[in-house]
Amino acid sequence: MSTPPGTNYWDYIRVEDLLSLQGGYERDERKLGNDEVMFIVVHQVYELWFKLILRELTTARDLFMKEPVPDVELAAAARSFRRVVTIFQQAVNHFQVMETMTTRDYLEFRDQLIPASGFQSAQLREIEILLGLDDDRRVPLGKESSYKQALKMGQGEPAPALDRVEARLAGGPPLKEVLYRWLSRTPVDGPSDPKVVRRFLEKFIASMRDEVARRVEIAVEKALTPADVERLRERYETEVRNAASFLLAEDDPSADEETREKRQAIRAGLVFIESYRELPRLAWPREILDAVIDMEQSMLIWRQRHARMVERVIGRRMGTGGSAGVDYLDQTALRYRIFSDIWAVRTVLLRKPVVPPIAHAEDYGFRVED
Amino acid sequence: MSTPPGTNYWDYIRVEDLLSLQGGYERDERKLGNDEVMFIVVHQVYELWFKLILRELTTARDLFMKEPVPDVELAAAARSFRRVVTIFQQAVNHFQVMETMTTRDYLEFRDQLIPASGFQSAQLREIEILLGLDDDRRVPLGKESSYKQALKMGQGEPAPALDRVEARLAGGPPLKEVLYRWLSRTPVDGPSDPKVVRRFLEKFIASMRDEVARRVEIAVEKALTPADVERLRERYETEVRNAASFLLAEDDPSADEETREKRQAIRAGLVFIESYRELPRLAWPREILDAVIDMEQSMLIWRQRHARMVERVIGRRMGTGGSAGVDYLDQTALRYRIFSDIWAVRTVLLRKPVVPPIAHAEDYGFRVED
Amino acid sequence: MSTPPGTNYWDYIRVEDLLSLQGGYERDERKLGNDEVMFIVVHQVYELWFKLILRELTTARDLFMKEPVPDVELAAAARSFRRVVTIFQQAVNHFQVMETMTTRDYLEFRDQLIPASGFQSAQLREIEILLGLDDDRRVPLGKESSYKQALKMGQGEPAPALDRVEARLAGGPPLKEVLYRWLSRTPVDGPSDPKVVRRFLEKFIASMRDEVARRVEIAVEKALTPADVERLRERYETEVRNAASFLLAEDDPSADEETREKRQAIRAGLVFIESYRELPRLAWPREILDAVIDMEQSMLIWRQRHARMVERVIGRRMGTGGSAGVDYLDQTALRYRIFSDIWAVRTVLLRKPVVPPIAHAEDYGFRVED
Amino acid sequence: MSTPPGTNYWDYIRVEDLLSLQGGYERDERKLGNDEVMFIVVHQVYELWFKLILRELTTARDLFMKEPVPDVELAAAARSFRRVVTIFQQAVNHFQVMETMTTRDYLEFRDQLIPASGFQSAQLREIEILLGLDDDRRVPLGKESSYKQALKMGQGEPAPALDRVEARLAGGPPLKEVLYRWLSRTPVDGPSDPKVVRRFLEKFIASMRDEVARRVEIAVEKALTPADVERLRERYETEVRNAASFLLAEDDPSADEETREKRQAIRAGLVFIESYRELPRLAWPREILDAVIDMEQSMLIWRQRHARMVERVIGRRMGTGGSAGVDYLDQTALRYRIFSDIWAVRTVLLRKPVVPPIAHAEDYGFRVED
Repeated sequence: MSTPPGTNYWDYIRVEDLLSLQGGYERDERKLGNDEVMFIVVHQVYELWFKLILRELTTARDLFMKEPVPDVELAAAARSFRRVVTIFQQAVNHFQVMETMTTRDYLEFRDQLIPASGFQSAQLREIEILLGLDDDRRVPLGKESSYKQALKMGQGEPAPALDRVEARLAGGPPLKEVLYRWLSRTPVDGPSDPKVVRRFLEKFIASMRDEVARRVEIAVEKALTPADVERLRERYETEVRNAASFLLAEDDPSADEETREKRQAIRAGLVFIESYRELPRLAWPREILDAVIDMEQSMLIWRQRHARMVERVIGRRMGTGGSAGVDYLDQTALRYRIFSDIWAVRTVLLRKPVVPPIAHAEDYGFRVED
Repeated sequence: MSTPPGTNYWDYIRVEDLLSLQGGYERDERKLGNDEVMFIVVHQVYELWFKLILRELTTARDLFMKEPVPDVELAAAARSFRRVVTIFQQAVNHFQVMETMTTRDYLEFRDQLIPASGFQSAQLREIEILLGLDDDRRVPLGKESSYKQALKMGQGEPAPALDRVEARLAGGPPLKEVLYRWLSRTPVDGPSDPKVVRRFLEKFIASMRDEVARRVEIAVEKALTPADVERLRERYETEVRNAASFLLAEDDPSADEETREKRQAIRAGLVFIESYRELPRLAWPREILDAVIDMEQSMLIWRQRHARMVERVIGRRMGTGGSAGVDYLDQTALRYRIFSDIWAVRTVLLRKPVVPPIAHAEDYGFRVED
Repeated sequence: MSTPPGTNYWDYIRVEDLLSLQGGYERDERKLGNDEVMFIVVHQVYELWFKLILRELTTARDLFMKEPVPDVELAAAARSFRRVVTIFQQAVNHFQVMETMTTRDYLEFRDQLIPASGFQSAQLREIEILLGLDDDRRVPLGKESSYKQALKMGQGEPAPALDRVEARLAGGPPLKEVLYRWLSRTPVDGPSDPKVVRRFLEKFIASMRDEVARRVEIAVEKALTPADVERLRERYETEVRNAASFLLAEDDPSADEETREKRQAIRAGLVFIESYRELPRLAWPREILDAVIDMEQSMLIWRQRHARMVERVIGRRMGTGGSAGVDYLDQTALRYRIFSDIWAVRTVLLRKPVVPPIAHAEDYGFRVED
Repeated sequence: MSTPPGTNYWDYIRVEDLLSLQGGYERDERKLGNDEVMFIVVHQVYELWFKLILRELTTARDLFMKEPVPDVELAAAARSFRRVVTIFQQAVNHFQVMETMTTRDYLEFRDQLIPASGFQSAQLREIEILLGLDDDRRVPLGKESSYKQALKMGQGEPAPALDRVEARLAGGPPLKEVLYRWLSRTPVDGPSDPKVVRRFLEKFIASMRDEVARRVEIAVEKALTPADVERLRERYETEVRNAASFLLAEDDPSADEETREKRQAIRAGLVFIESYRELPRLAWPREILDAVIDMEQSMLIWRQRHARMVERVIGRRMGTGGSAGVDYLDQTALRYRIFSDIWAVRTVLLRKPVVPPIAHAEDYGFRVED
């Protein structure tokens, strides 16, 4: 484009260029039915949203790379995550547009798509990489040795999808890594130090044991049979054992001492922030945690809704790219968990009255009015 | 692009081209903040949806141009309208993405947009034209003598927005016109004929009068004061007078006899379809009416929600294109009514037990099982 | 209430009685925090929606019990299903209200709920029963020998939940049964007769085989390696074999001849309606199928969203009623499939150009205009 | 209820009592059609949500009554407002359930409702009162001298709706009043003092004037015609004059000096918080403002959507309670603005680079990490 763009809507939004991209393989949309143009557009809308998500996640990741993270910028990170949530909430509804197409009408143009596949959306892979999805969590997809293999499929050379993914992999640490590092620096009722962390976790686990004893008493009061009480007691005790093992990072015997200490610090930070939510100084960390959970949940909901759309429109056929279709999508939804520790902490929290009192509450205040 | 596209996702969806269109006036997105890229993307998403809406409306309009409309295709028209509704329902929520931007952050790049304006979205104008918005309903926009004037604004030559609108204006009758023509051919308990229409309307109006009498009786029973009863009676009678005037098309004294007959036929068709909804032969006409109402309502809701977003993010400033901003948007929402007769009919319907019985019910059946 | 209700909003909506029901176990809402009142209200809202769903499903079930089903009423059944869909769409969002409560705040009152559980919602069980969930699909829940056992839990005598469920079980056949019976009577290009059904299915399966041959050719053209082509051919052939086995009802070797014929008739009816969607006489049957799929999908989405809310607010604890919590909910979402045949048919459909032509198209028309 | 409730779902949620409240005037739901039960249930769901809203607003109002407002509790107020938003977002969608009823079917039972009306929902009036709707903003409703009159309508004595409203009116100041008082105490770059406020406002208005000059220059550069430039300059100058008049509280000449100072302090607080959003100490005040705007917007959207549903299902008839129906609802949506100053401030904000620098930034920090 040699002439400078005019100050008008169509040059700013690039309307004409944008509306010329719905021609499918033949580059001629007059040959396409409404259903196929709709199919293309919905995918384009997804790519546009993914682009925004990638920008926000990059901004947030860059922020958490700083040590210390400037407090004044935590609110910006929370806003980035909230925008991602809002976008996934849009995205989840777009499947309703897809579902205005019947199975039979989709079959009309489906075969010609083979072996292309939505799995070749580089940006979705980039989002996973940038968030920090572990490669060994990935569900294998048909014959490909790896997900990267699929990004080369098709006759085309070069493969821009693969280029994007490689660039992302080379583009710095994932959000999960830097966020966890920040969490591990949370001062848990004392300076950031392994002994302080350990002491905090032990007090917390002790409170948990008291809580189980109390619950068993309630069960007795409620006149459950002795067998029922015993069964309950066993289940609660298993819960505490699991919780303690998680908090003390003894759930992975292969980890060395340093790794274990790091994990203890992360988990202690998480428990601390969630348990003393009302402390002003924890206000933004807490917002961050809520927003991250919200973000991962919204992505998970999007994945499950994706599976539902595919099952409805396509049925349980093999995917055009060779995947197991619906089952593959349903599996990824539940397996592709990234912030597992933040989720896991929800299972070990205690109600407020039995949370151990903290010693240095005054360190966690701030003020608005004079 | 000289090499043929490969059979892969990125060539089919045009991912790389698509993701190169968010550079703003400078054609360089690295210079733009996340907010501005989001602002551009949301508008692009709207343009993509509008494209789908235009395709569906064109398909439906073309169908209703046929005389008679092939019954087997009515279901397809209903599906087109339903898809438009689903799309507007998506669109209404996108304002939430926009609202993740604060007023102050929007101001950061707003001035440079002047005099561009969302008002220059040709496709939205095309949708209005294709639906059948009367030009004299349009709310004047700042200094422009007409909405077409605005589509030339900006230094740019040529003005693709204006070209699109002119092409649409030259592209055949609007949906409203052909849909109303089809409605006017509805057999209202007899062959499609002005006398049959007139007789049907008169019977219907008579039932209306009985209904008012009954309602006044109820008011008396409920021990309202005589003054209250009188006030109610007057209001009901005004309602009937207005209804009769509407049904007999006496609400526009300037109309000639032929126009009046045509309008009577349309309104009789509407009342007939709505009043005898359970007749199988009316099943698809009824679906069409429901879908058209749903479609116009969804567009109206989108307009009102648009006004709310603008008020929230921008406040009550003059629009970048010189419009009155929020007030302009709120006005268009309520004024830009296209299928006014279909809406108006809702005010004159009667409950089922007092609808006049029809004489030729057997003409309106069909069967599924043998 | 001895005095007759007045003609006013509060007596009609029962506002005062309604607003007196949020006192929890202590029957005193002043003792409850906002979170607990919210928790109670959300459950009450669910129960109110479930009530509406049960009414609509009963209406639809009663309709399909008639033989033949009066054509004029099919539209009413479609509307009932659509209302159920709209309600589930509301319900899915209510989890967002629940999620405004943090884990820690929920723990504040959670223990006192034990052993009560949302699993004791009789109406949800009734919906499952009325739809036709097979008992052997149910996921076992903790110690209870059956789901009915759970409805007795708590000290309380009597157990209105159990009474409701027993009444529902005794209240006539489920929707699935009568809907399938109606489907099996679909005239599939000829009179409703096992031989006609069989012939139709065989022609359809033959088209399927042609389609596979064609697809393998395409794969060869697209220059896949011979090994890849072979792998594809095998997968397609497995698909056809599975499809044929399903259509001919050979997927359950234990079924006797009569059962097999009945199933063939159901599946042929489904394939027929989906494959010749544009035939006017199939318009309402097709709407029914779409609505039933939509309804089951919306319930499934609700269940998966339920699991997400529980995981977020509660974590992966044992449920208050003793269930496995999140895992239990995730399992029920995918296992509690009721209209399996309608779903399965989506996997065997063919694109329109290769669907075998039908012989008696004129039997499937109807007309709107004269 | 003499026996203590059992620890089970139905006694906690009051399921049986709840499900007995849908009998309409005759107290017998077997006489009611599905549409009428749906109509009753949707209203009941609204009343339940309103109850939650009232609790959250009361909690927040009580908090802002404290002087100073404890900083640690601001987050709780934000959460209350967010819950209200989430609830209104649910509520807006419920109109879709109502719209599954056709006009004709609604007419079936509509007459018997007269003169009851949704206008008699006491809780909606209470929400308005608690928020702080000025009485002189209320749109008159038919013959009633005041909205309280309507709450007596119907034969019934006593009128619990009126009692609720009277109790609310007597129950303390509205949220608006106490929130504005808190805002007026915002330290705007110095101690909370009228002179400091005045100085801040004057600096801000000066920046505004510079901004206008700059914009006019841009217009000249963009080669607008001199007439266009002049027209723009005039409009901008009017904008500044209006903004200055608002900020200095000169928009109400009848106000005395003290009132004017109070208003200046409120508006200065608003501008300050919005303009220096990134200052940590302003983080929660900013969240509060965002949440209040979000809350009022969500209520407004609910009102407009209400008008759309009524127009669709009922048409433009007189309301059962005698109101002007749709027009009344559309008017209240735009007129019943409560937090007008918070909205108005959006129109006067400046982009960040031209906001006057503040002198005491160090007073507005806080820290998370050590």
